[in-house]
Amino acid sequence: MQLQSMPDASPTKWHLAHTSWFFETFVLNSRLPGYRTFDQHFHHLFNSYYNSLGTPFTRSQRGLISRPDIDRVYAYRKSVDTGIEKLLKDSPCSSNLASLIALGLNHEQQHQELLLTDIKHALSLNPLAPAYSDGIPEEESATAEPLRWLEIPGGCYGIGSEGEDFFFDNEGPAHQQLVQEFSIASRLVTNGEYLAFIEDGGYQQHRLWLSDGWALVQQNQHRHPLYWRETENGWQQFSLHGLQPLNEAEPVHHLSFYEADAFATWAGKRLPTEFEWEAAACHLRQLDQLATANLLEKRFLKPLPARRGQTQFLGDLWEWTSSSYLPYHGFKAREDAVGEYNGKFMCNQKVLRGGSFATPSDHIRISYRNFFYPHQAWQFTGVRLAGD
Amino acid sequence: MQLQSMPDASPTKWHLAHTSWFFETFVLNSRLPGYRTFDQHFHHLFNSYYNSLGTPFTRSQRGLISRPDIDRVYAYRKSVDTGIEKLLKDSPCSSNLASLIALGLNHEQQHQELLLTDIKHALSLNPLAPAYSDGIPEEESATAEPLRWLEIPGGCYGIGSEGEDFFFDNEGPAHQQLVQEFSIASRLVTNGEYLAFIEDGGYQQHRLWLSDGWALVQQNQHRHPLYWRETENGWQQFSLHGLQPLNEAEPVHHLSFYEADAFATWAGKRLPTEFEWEAAACHLRQLDQLATANLLEKRFLKPLPARRGQTQFLGDLWEWTSSSYLPYHGFKAREDAVGEYNGKFMCNQKVLRGGSFATPSDHIRISYRNFFYPHQAWQFTGVRLAGD
Amino acid sequence: MQLQSMPDASPTKWHLAHTSWFFETFVLNSRLPGYRTFDQHFHHLFNSYYNSLGTPFTRSQRGLISRPDIDRVYAYRKSVDTGIEKLLKDSPCSSNLASLIALGLNHEQQHQELLLTDIKHALSLNPLAPAYSDGIPEEESATAEPLRWLEIPGGCYGIGSEGEDFFFDNEGPAHQQLVQEFSIASRLVTNGEYLAFIEDGGYQQHRLWLSDGWALVQQNQHRHPLYWRETENGWQQFSLHGLQPLNEAEPVHHLSFYEADAFATWAGKRLPTEFEWEAAACHLRQLDQLATANLLEKRFLKPLPARRGQTQFLGDLWEWTSSSYLPYHGFKAREDAVGEYNGKFMCNQKVLRGGSFATPSDHIRISYRNFFYPHQAWQFTGVRLAGD
Amino acid sequence: MQLQSMPDASPTKWHLAHTSWFFETFVLNSRLPGYRTFDQHFHHLFNSYYNSLGTPFTRSQRGLISRPDIDRVYAYRKSVDTGIEKLLKDSPCSSNLASLIALGLNHEQQHQELLLTDIKHALSLNPLAPAYSDGIPEEESATAEPLRWLEIPGGCYGIGSEGEDFFFDNEGPAHQQLVQEFSIASRLVTNGEYLAFIEDGGYQQHRLWLSDGWALVQQNQHRHPLYWRETENGWQQFSLHGLQPLNEAEPVHHLSFYEADAFATWAGKRLPTEFEWEAAACHLRQLDQLATANLLEKRFLKPLPARRGQTQFLGDLWEWTSSSYLPYHGFKAREDAVGEYNGKFMCNQKVLRGGSFATPSDHIRISYRNFFYPHQAWQFTGVRLAGD
Repeated sequence: MQLQSMPDASPTKWHLAHTSWFFETFVLNSRLPGYRTFDQHFHHLFNSYYNSLGTPFTRSQRGLISRPDIDRVYAYRKSVDTGIEKLLKDSPCSSNLASLIALGLNHEQQHQELLLTDIKHALSLNPLAPAYSDGIPEEESATAEPLRWLEIPGGCYGIGSEGEDFFFDNEGPAHQQLVQEFSIASRLVTNGEYLAFIEDGGYQQHRLWLSDGWALVQQNQHRHPLYWRETENGWQQFSLHGLQPLNEAEPVHHLSFYEADAFATWAGKRLPTEFEWEAAACHLRQLDQLATANLLEKRFLKPLPARRGQTQFLGDLWEWTSSSYLPYHGFKAREDAVGEYNGKFMCNQKVLRGGSFATPSDHIRISYRNFFYPHQAWQFTGVRLAGD
Repeated sequence: MQLQSMPDASPTKWHLAHTSWFFETFVLNSRLPGYRTFDQHFHHLFNSYYNSLGTPFTRSQRGLISRPDIDRVYAYRKSVDTGIEKLLKDSPCSSNLASLIALGLNHEQQHQELLLTDIKHALSLNPLAPAYSDGIPEEESATAEPLRWLEIPGGCYGIGSEGEDFFFDNEGPAHQQLVQEFSIASRLVTNGEYLAFIEDGGYQQHRLWLSDGWALVQQNQHRHPLYWRETENGWQQFSLHGLQPLNEAEPVHHLSFYEADAFATWAGKRLPTEFEWEAAACHLRQLDQLATANLLEKRFLKPLPARRGQTQFLGDLWEWTSSSYLPYHGFKAREDAVGEYNGKFMCNQKVLRGGSFATPSDHIRISYRNFFYPHQAWQFTGVRLAGD
Repeated sequence: MQLQSMPDASPTKWHLAHTSWFFETFVLNSRLPGYRTFDQHFHHLFNSYYNSLGTPFTRSQRGLISRPDIDRVYAYRKSVDTGIEKLLKDSPCSSNLASLIALGLNHEQQHQELLLTDIKHALSLNPLAPAYSDGIPEEESATAEPLRWLEIPGGCYGIGSEGEDFFFDNEGPAHQQLVQEFSIASRLVTNGEYLAFIEDGGYQQHRLWLSDGWALVQQNQHRHPLYWRETENGWQQFSLHGLQPLNEAEPVHHLSFYEADAFATWAGKRLPTEFEWEAAACHLRQLDQLATANLLEKRFLKPLPARRGQTQFLGDLWEWTSSSYLPYHGFKAREDAVGEYNGKFMCNQKVLRGGSFATPSDHIRISYRNFFYPHQAWQFTGVRLAGD
Repeated sequence: MQLQSMPDASPTKWHLAHTSWFFETFVLNSRLPGYRTFDQHFHHLFNSYYNSLGTPFTRSQRGLISRPDIDRVYAYRKSVDTGIEKLLKDSPCSSNLASLIALGLNHEQQHQELLLTDIKHALSLNPLAPAYSDGIPEEESATAEPLRWLEIPGGCYGIGSEGEDFFFDNEGPAHQQLVQEFSIASRLVTNGEYLAFIEDGGYQQHRLWLSDGWALVQQNQHRHPLYWRETENGWQQFSLHGLQPLNEAEPVHHLSFYEADAFATWAGKRLPTEFEWEAAACHLRQLDQLATANLLEKRFLKPLPARRGQTQFLGDLWEWTSSSYLPYHGFKAREDAVGEYNGKFMCNQKVLRGGSFATPSDHIRISYRNFFYPHQAWQFTGVRLAGD
């Protein structure tokens, strides 16, 4: 639980401590009368990136934290939980407190997904290819529904969130966005479709790639998605269930933005903008076609081949959009430490939408904006095509 | 003329050869009957980034090209010029040929500006601080016009170029963009204003910076713009006229996007989007307030303090916008080698607008989109603030 | 037990598995009839650097080996031990087998010392400064014996080992070496003496340093030994007993060769050659003055201030010599995999002599040649001065 | 003349200025009454590594020195020459002055050789493969003399230099060294012999290589000497005369120490120690067999196939020895700036002996100790084998 497999990924133990640190720091320290910090050293060790709260422990060195051991981290979690329960019982209800606690819960949900992402990466580097989950997933379909093109009418769409329910600050301000008529795929791109790209020499054709992506492909000799392996028994894929034969009907995942974009170019299509994506989801919701999503509660721990009626907008995989992660017009980050949550990352990253099989159903919204750097592929990322 | 001071910058000799190579490759080789390539090796040496034409010589090694010597490069230029003149005299007029030659000329204009940018960088690294130009510029004003806030009405603005006149492919398709009412500064930010940011600890306050910018500032210990130097005689600035005392009235230049953005945050303002910038310029043009720009023909070789009536939208300095460099809706790069000119760079870069003191007046347009990575500061970049 | 704190250091779990792998690979696989490899994957995972046996798992990634878990590693050790016991009981005695088993045991002793070295490094990086050993060492003297200069007569000395008893191949061939008369310090350099070097600006005076050492000091801003920390309570030192006030009487340790050499230059002395060191030890042994060494059995887990009659040639700390690690005249490495043990490292490293507080007493000899790169300081290294 | 092709190599212009700087700094400034420094900036720019004289300009950035231009550097040289001439005419003769001037001359001879070494490297990186010298060397023999093994008797040999004639400080103190009987090759290893090593898979057999060398070969995918190129017309070699077909009779050159050592291991031999080399040369000199060396005055600018009676001990190529570059017993560097000339480099480097085709005949001696890092191959290095 201490292993850190790369600077982007954190140890399990660190995730467990950091999420409780979040509650302790932003809630208990200032709001629970008489609360005493569990361990002063933790403030430095488990601060992720809040410079307002002092210099965080170096991200790439989280794997060095041999102490506290896991028992002490669990004790920390229990202590913080107890504090929160006491606070909830004793404190007068306040919308400010409620919103901070909701933030803390959503924050923990994000880290629960990251736990799986990071564990998968760590296990993938072990030559023994250990499985995270021994449970065999249900019998999978070997075919995916044929791809259909959904026509989305142009017009002004309401983008973003507002109101009482919880949403992250980067989802606002809610505003109107003019979207032109476009078409969008009825499901995610499959392994089989991506295999055709590979077999057509997709990784060798510079004209399909953005310049920075092509440089990366050349430098690292990328030839397939992150967890694919070409073996003497054909293509295999490392998954949370261990090494498995590649199911061509399954959505292709662990693509970088560059790979997603190159595939779309090869297919004669493009990625949707985040506004098109949200408009399409909004349109489908009105048609009642967003249901039966493959989210965390299903416990499949993997994306599934699309079945009849499944559009995969929610769940299965985070979908790369062509949009850069930028503030919505009028966005202002809070001036306190919580303001560092989202705003300062609005540069050099791309927006992903829709959640994955590892996202809880009460965490995701069609206005939800996830963001990663275009080279990153260790997340549960996928591709949906769009066209004019 | 052979010195390469960093991978981003090219030797003077290389610029001279590359711009002729462009004409030879895209015009003469295929269109001038009987034309024989000047030197087969040049095709590899002076190809910048056109993968369609074979593997270009490694960018970071252009400084290694000791041969051909400069006399041979001048002979190359003369030979290509002669070929073009012959082609223009002998060939039937065709819009396709005309547009390629216009592209070649605009391409050469871009490199003429880069020549100055790169020479400045090279000279700046020499402890002798040699001047590029001995000519002393005209007596400069020690004061800049007070900053005014121009109110730009909201509405649908026509963005981009179309029609007969030359424009780069990334300026199209022309389209309408909904812009909300905003205000924009009447001139560029000055050295004096930026100095106040420094003196207020701007480089030490993490909350002013985007996360990636803050990491860069910490890593490189940035404390001032690229060419500023703190000496025992106060602040000085390396310029094309050598090392000069800092004129506080002069527009601050050689900022990275991160510095521009942090300054704007510190000032309680923001950068304009590229659409706001173009809308404002369009608005001012209708009011006839874009005139008397400090462009290349003035030969000042530096930005000047704003005088009465000068808005500095064109000339003086390239202005960082908050917009990521992305394709306009419906943009498609050409499928041939020329298609590599702009499209493949539409990732990870920010848009700059307006041209600089080194841009020819027949080269710049209000729809012109320049683009650089957010960390780059060796270009003639500046800042204009916007507000809601 | 899985943490790898830097590429030079290995996880505890890896050391435990690797030492059993050594017995399995070099003894059981070929010599125990019917022996079946415990786990085929281990051959790759726990091979340190024997290219003859296939590509070893990348050294810098040993921290990624989450599986096998520690229980399985202990099972592996038990299984190999059982196999060796069976082999010893069943097999006819052979000098070849005996020498391989002796090699395996000495190999494991080396890794036992490395276990402590590597754990110390890992713990040192934790801001909590955890102690490896809670046991408080005996009351330490706050003074060291005054340094005396032992005069060693010149002449031909027998260097190296030969004969029946175990020794590493790099200790042979035994040969005569002409050594000129010299003097050598009666004990190791102390913290107090090294502190005087620091306070005299030793880390700021280029003339004291070898060129490569000076470059390293400048680059890394070294200002004191690896585990020293300057606190508001004065100098402290991270040790296997946690963070402790600096005892000036204690031998200074965790110096790089560059630091050791610079100190000697500052002191107007020099480091001994490995031949001088061995000659001096040989001379002292004849005078019966090598006794009562601080080796592993004492369980101090730290070097101690020299007491009357202690010369510290054996135990306390490995002593840097000025000699490069080169083959003795006539040395030939074995042609099989075991030949990779020592010979291929005879370049770029310096010889250290004498063992440390973590070396078992039946492991060390005065002919014993340890070797590390001149920049390495995480070993239990110290300094003894010599003069002409 | 300004191009710097890698950090180890310096621009021609820099060599020209630095060698005059040496005379100005160590002779004129302190000894010529009324001498005024030519240009104060030069002291920083053209100081190589004398920390006693202030911080030298960063070595890896010598290629950035666009100014002073070459005319000014020649003026500098002329001015310094004039100063030295004046000093020699006016000053009373002193052995101290004479020895400094001798040092300056020998220093300049070293840089004259480096000029060729560095120019060769710079030209080699140009795809045009330009020749340094258009003059075609004399018709070369296509065969080399058969290799003979010279038996050198064991015994005490006088090593190093002493007395009135100039020698570098690292050649002393002269002392006796006990050398055991050994054999040494009568000539250098040839291209043909090295080709057999390559064709036998020498670069793929880890057991032939020192560990650090093997790591380097793997990392850089080395498969042949630095300037060899495998073309469709067979092996070619870049030389000061441009790209030439490989002459198998010619001595193999531009090997790193690792390559030299691996070849020797493959051949079942070893490299000589520097003492063996000097003993052998001393022995041959007594037999009058060191004559007719291929040194700079011959102007071949390349090593030649050994002819009858040529042992190639002097000239042709610097010969790697197995000895680390360490001080002779009793060596002490001078305490002033001149003391930085040799002493501080006595770590991590290997000794080479004998001079090359680019060494002046009045510069080389059999006691001469050159030194480079084991990975460096851009010098005119070669191999001579030894055996027991």
